[in-house]
Amino acid sequence: MKANYARPLDVKRGHVDLSHGSGGRAMAQLIEELFASEFSNEFLAQGDDGARLADPCGRLVMATDAHVVSPLFFPGGDIGCLSVHGTINDVAVMGAVPLYLAASFILEEGYPLADLARIVASMARASRAAGVPVVTGDTKVVERGKADGVFITTTGVGVLREGIDCSGARARPGDAVLLSGSIGEHGMAIMSLRENLAFDAPIVSDTAALHGLIGELLGAVPQLRTMRDPTRGGVATTLNEIARQSGVGMLINEAAIRVTPPVEAACELLGLDPLYVANEGKLLVICPPEHADAALAAMRAHPLGVAANLIGYVQEDDRHFVQMQTRLGGRRIVDWLSSEQLPRIC
Amino acid sequence: MKANYARPLDVKRGHVDLSHGSGGRAMAQLIEELFASEFSNEFLAQGDDGARLADPCGRLVMATDAHVVSPLFFPGGDIGCLSVHGTINDVAVMGAVPLYLAASFILEEGYPLADLARIVASMARASRAAGVPVVTGDTKVVERGKADGVFITTTGVGVLREGIDCSGARARPGDAVLLSGSIGEHGMAIMSLRENLAFDAPIVSDTAALHGLIGELLGAVPQLRTMRDPTRGGVATTLNEIARQSGVGMLINEAAIRVTPPVEAACELLGLDPLYVANEGKLLVICPPEHADAALAAMRAHPLGVAANLIGYVQEDDRHFVQMQTRLGGRRIVDWLSSEQLPRIC
Repeated sequence: MKANYARPLDVKRGHVDLSHGSGGRAMAQLIEELFASEFSNEFLAQGDDGARLADPCGRLVMATDAHVVSPLFFPGGDIGCLSVHGTINDVAVMGAVPLYLAASFILEEGYPLADLARIVASMARASRAAGVPVVTGDTKVVERGKADGVFITTTGVGVLREGIDCSGARARPGDAVLLSGSIGEHGMAIMSLRENLAFDAPIVSDTAALHGLIGELLGAVPQLRTMRDPTRGGVATTLNEIARQSGVGMLINEAAIRVTPPVEAACELLGLDPLYVANEGKLLVICPPEHADAALAAMRAHPLGVAANLIGYVQEDDRHFVQMQTRLGGRRIVDWLSSEQLPRIC
Repeated sequence: MKANYARPLDVKRGHVDLSHGSGGRAMAQLIEELFASEFSNEFLAQGDDGARLADPCGRLVMATDAHVVSPLFFPGGDIGCLSVHGTINDVAVMGAVPLYLAASFILEEGYPLADLARIVASMARASRAAGVPVVTGDTKVVERGKADGVFITTTGVGVLREGIDCSGARARPGDAVLLSGSIGEHGMAIMSLRENLAFDAPIVSDTAALHGLIGELLGAVPQLRTMRDPTRGGVATTLNEIARQSGVGMLINEAAIRVTPPVEAACELLGLDPLYVANEGKLLVICPPEHADAALAAMRAHPLGVAANLIGYVQEDDRHFVQMQTRLGGRRIVDWLSSEQLPRIC
């Protein structure tokens, strides 16, 4: 049942104002004309305070992520598609099939409606492409200077695949460590923009939904121990988290980790180590060594895994160190990220 | 597996800094020492990017709410318990049993850790009291001046009760409209604080989780048509939403709507109509008239519904007007909230 508003929302020239978060008529109009038309699906159309969904027929998985990336638009994406991909990936790496997303917006008074519409359209495209609908949402508005344009929290639920048991706690000495492609694109796309680095071709974020790749991979190798998307803190921090959670160490091979020349150049310019730079479309996999070849083959057969590589092995280590065999033949310890290298990267 | 940090988090004198959102060691420590210890449960303890939950055995319901209330602490509650109650209520009014919550935090650099710890403790208390665990979460930090202390988005999932079909679209002419108690306490608790209104006794927010009351009510009267918690925009706006969604009108009786004297006094001082003021622990119910007495009895038997009242009836009306029989015997139209009456009330 559509309402009649005095005039349509002026998406071209209008701005977010406090009334758009009031719960009243202006909010209803914003939701109808800007959100619901883009996200259009049977669940949102219910028009209640939440969404009634299907029986997932299995164990649930739930993940949530706040997105505060700055700037909001960057080569390869924007906060809209990022917020869809990020949460789909968090559900998918648990070994679950992502089913539904909830989206909550915190908007700053004065933000241009045209930019908000671009963000929402990008979210909707990403959600449709992934086949994971945004089924419910919320919008709040805060005064100018009390937020930074747009923050989006997405929450995903999915259903755990039967017979799959993936966790950061399951890595065992001897397991192979695989990585789906080159590292650092997302973080360096953002940093290059912030620092006004000019390249012949801009570094493009790798933001992508990994559930398709993961589906293929689990079909081929259901024995996987651990999957993670190495976002904030990069591959180095994610490996350290897994090492700690599983009570093991790791030895990785620098030469096997791909870094594209533009990312390498930008990292050198800014004094950053690509191992600590965020990715938004890469997958770290740990699996028993006898399944490594099959897992690599399955990953390389998918467009998001063509550059997949074996990058190292899990080993016994009471100190839970992640060590790296360097290109020069030495070894060094790859520690946790300990300072704020890249704020607001996602 | 706990990590060893150089020193424990200084919760008494410390502040949030950008490293707490970096994905690195400082973030891990914040999560361990401030969040995980409070929310402690088997799901969070899994330590992955999401949580593996049980099979809900039925149709899912999902709801999400961003909380940006200002000030963060108020008589009767704070953003922490509010963010738990608000989302539990959104799931419960769909006729579902709330099962799990996800919590995502956006923190402003410089926010005192001691205050954050109070908020988290309040969330954890509310979650335990409600029996709905916080199973997964996320933390982001933005620079000073890019947020306002703490924003919290909570997302809830629940399972729909068999045989229950509640929706804002199901109100039918002749149905009774019930309200669980007096109105405006939450909004006026916030506004009195903001406007420095001094009363002998402060107005206390009614923030509360309604799923217990709703469980009793649905046990007694499974035929309920609609439940809603009248938050932003108040009872007036919520009734208008239902009228529009169901394609009906309503006639409500001013004398039957309870407003406590302090709320009435504060509203008069500030020129506000309590019908438009937010509640965070009240329930609007629409049910077939023959079940109104049973529904009222069930509500009054619960501590959160002792002051429940029949406040009016649904009627046919192609214009979907909500009308009010005033105390003086006249009738007026109760329109949607059309301006921003009370920003950042929840």
